[in-house]
Amino acid sequence: MKKAQEKRVVVIGGGFAGFSAVKTLGNCKGILVTLVDRRNHHLFQPLLYQVAMAGLNPSEISVPLRSYFSRYKNVDVLMAEVSQVDLENKKINFDNEWLSYDYLLIACGSKHFYFGNDEWEEYAPGLKTIEQATEIRRRILLAFELAEREKDQKKREQYLTFVVVGGGPTGVEMAGAISEMARNTLYKDYKNANLKKTCVVLIEAGSRILNAFPEKLSDRAKSDLEDMGVEVLLNQRAGPLSKHGVKVGDRFLHAHTIIWAAGVKPSQLTESIDVQKHTDGRILVGGDLSLPKNPNVFVLGDQAACCVDKKDEKEFLPALAPVAIQQGRFVARLIKNEMSGKSRSSFRYVNKGIMVTIGRSRAVASSGPIQLTGFLAWLAWVFVHITYLVRFKNKVFVLLQWIWAYFSFGKGARLIIHKTWRFYSGKKIPISKNSDL
Amino acid sequence: MKKAQEKRVVVIGGGFAGFSAVKTLGNCKGILVTLVDRRNHHLFQPLLYQVAMAGLNPSEISVPLRSYFSRYKNVDVLMAEVSQVDLENKKINFDNEWLSYDYLLIACGSKHFYFGNDEWEEYAPGLKTIEQATEIRRRILLAFELAEREKDQKKREQYLTFVVVGGGPTGVEMAGAISEMARNTLYKDYKNANLKKTCVVLIEAGSRILNAFPEKLSDRAKSDLEDMGVEVLLNQRAGPLSKHGVKVGDRFLHAHTIIWAAGVKPSQLTESIDVQKHTDGRILVGGDLSLPKNPNVFVLGDQAACCVDKKDEKEFLPALAPVAIQQGRFVARLIKNEMSGKSRSSFRYVNKGIMVTIGRSRAVASSGPIQLTGFLAWLAWVFVHITYLVRFKNKVFVLLQWIWAYFSFGKGARLIIHKTWRFYSGKKIPISKNSDL
Repeated sequence: MKKAQEKRVVVIGGGFAGFSAVKTLGNCKGILVTLVDRRNHHLFQPLLYQVAMAGLNPSEISVPLRSYFSRYKNVDVLMAEVSQVDLENKKINFDNEWLSYDYLLIACGSKHFYFGNDEWEEYAPGLKTIEQATEIRRRILLAFELAEREKDQKKREQYLTFVVVGGGPTGVEMAGAISEMARNTLYKDYKNANLKKTCVVLIEAGSRILNAFPEKLSDRAKSDLEDMGVEVLLNQRAGPLSKHGVKVGDRFLHAHTIIWAAGVKPSQLTESIDVQKHTDGRILVGGDLSLPKNPNVFVLGDQAACCVDKKDEKEFLPALAPVAIQQGRFVARLIKNEMSGKSRSSFRYVNKGIMVTIGRSRAVASSGPIQLTGFLAWLAWVFVHITYLVRFKNKVFVLLQWIWAYFSFGKGARLIIHKTWRFYSGKKIPISKNSDL
Repeated sequence: MKKAQEKRVVVIGGGFAGFSAVKTLGNCKGILVTLVDRRNHHLFQPLLYQVAMAGLNPSEISVPLRSYFSRYKNVDVLMAEVSQVDLENKKINFDNEWLSYDYLLIACGSKHFYFGNDEWEEYAPGLKTIEQATEIRRRILLAFELAEREKDQKKREQYLTFVVVGGGPTGVEMAGAISEMARNTLYKDYKNANLKKTCVVLIEAGSRILNAFPEKLSDRAKSDLEDMGVEVLLNQRAGPLSKHGVKVGDRFLHAHTIIWAAGVKPSQLTESIDVQKHTDGRILVGGDLSLPKNPNVFVLGDQAACCVDKKDEKEFLPALAPVAIQQGRFVARLIKNEMSGKSRSSFRYVNKGIMVTIGRSRAVASSGPIQLTGFLAWLAWVFVHITYLVRFKNKVFVLLQWIWAYFSFGKGARLIIHKTWRFYSGKKIPISKNSDL
């Protein structure tokens, strides 16, 4: 039961922003926290590509929200999908229930954006959820199996062609990992298909991959990828997509497997909230991350268009995990301060740097004046990711998996898990081979 | 290419029987082996219930067949579903391809049998595949979430009622594990639903559970389960089933989650083979496990009705992993012997004993005159299962998971993984909440 002097903070979304906010508000006197998420777990998305690449298990990069927050008496966790935010009456709706708030934190992240071509999703899944990661894993491993059995040379090449759309961190990591897995790990398991001939194409619309990095590192990442057998296409737009492949400029790439790592847009809920938005759909927030007309409502993480003043230009903070984590902590502290009568300050992002791994012993990292490449960058990447992983058990198991994989050159969870049937409206639906690919 | 003097052994199914046969035939001169399985992995089924109970990851109890057998030059692995066996012309069909054999080993196991009520499967999945295990995990964890949010007392009780149909090893292990997870691990995470009131009912049609065990151990298992809060109903048949629950005698158990661990029948392929069968659908085999009219075709594991002559009665070997493993090895050796001119012998099953775990530090084990219960039986169970697990990495990770769980009283992979959509015949189908439960 809420007491009169207590404030209810409702947090929508248990991603990086929501998770760090709830953690900071844990066991605070006078504050009741309700975390609402349609998933029952927090997901460490930076390592999700390793689940898709059969290197890690889903559970090793996830934390069940309920058990994690059971340590705080003032935190409630609800597994539900918020359908409506009523800013006027200060309440949110899920499954026909209303929940009132004193403070609201909207942090439900982003989803993939196919530039208006939603039908492409069938041919090129994105990588945001565990389900998508295991689906991508299934498609990649199945492609090798189909190639092994195929007698037609052309078709076999198509099975062994993998296209990754989007040259950001996820695209680079996926492209590198597929090429490495085929050439270094799996090739000896296949007797008919020559996996050394696996063709991985990375398509980037801009003039360089990893455009958030210094140009030198972008170039290094490109040459690392090319060393590993990845074809990198710059200044090229992908589309249209079909089950036969993808059109890129004048070329049609016959590919059995396409992975979407290009556009994102804020999640569904954002659209239904009637506030001022940036052209990319993100909600425009003030310096304290609140809505201009609703100072008790904050928007965080991928959903927020948060201004950074630079000398000459106005810029928005990128959709990165460290931004979301810092924003969550900032808003939580702001609420605590406000309740003890202090005034609000503005959010300042402390950029500790960015890094991305390209393959075995290969990565690029940039932090202030420091730029690392190769083995050193890769070691730094391993260290940072183990440090930031939530839950001690996950740290131990992920580190063990990595050590094992490093010394055995092997990959872990190479399972093809089918959905052979599914009940839909009471009917048993067989998932046929074609519809499933 | 097959040489004239070489023999092709085709093995259908990479379960315990097929796996041990292929292993025994690995690197044998003059023998080419083709293993055909619709899955890409061998599954250690005795631990599958722990995947369903969020204790282990799917990859920890599986081995990718292709990578495991890549060590043998004479073994080919094909991921395909065999649709037809042509005994007369000595060939099998899959996906419109024909493959000829000199020796054929049929070992594709069994599937669940709902006593002719296939529609029950929707309400009560069985536990044979990884997909089913993660589906059961999803249903169990979701039931607790729904109970937590439910305000109606009756409905909440229904969410917290779990019915397990069938008092064999799987049923006993599932019932014990659900009760233990709710009462000892999860209860502190839920603030509204009282998980200590979780009701687990185990329904057995016979006069005792674990009827393959000595009567004393059956009784001990029953009292152990009752200690742990499981209600054991004997001499009761379950059915009909619906989404509201299950009818048992005059009683209707309102239950949100039902798990089927009762009947099994040989897999689909068995039906299409026109040979003599036992009333339960298993194929009748001779003493050397071959078909009476086709001495080069062997049936192994759950699919075979293999006679054991006892003093007074005729009996068939049970569908157990050790039987399948020994049969696989026996037939492989028989083929090797036959090729070097030796005559055939009869299969003799060496019964090393049976064991089943009931909960933390509780198990029953029986081996010849030795009967173990409690902590000692449980330790023996742990030791035997780690020993028999295939792949060194799996042994290490499963042991680590168990040690971690033992000392933390926690469970590992407590993720609810949804299928939020699925493409079917080109259409995107949302999996609605109701159809999914």
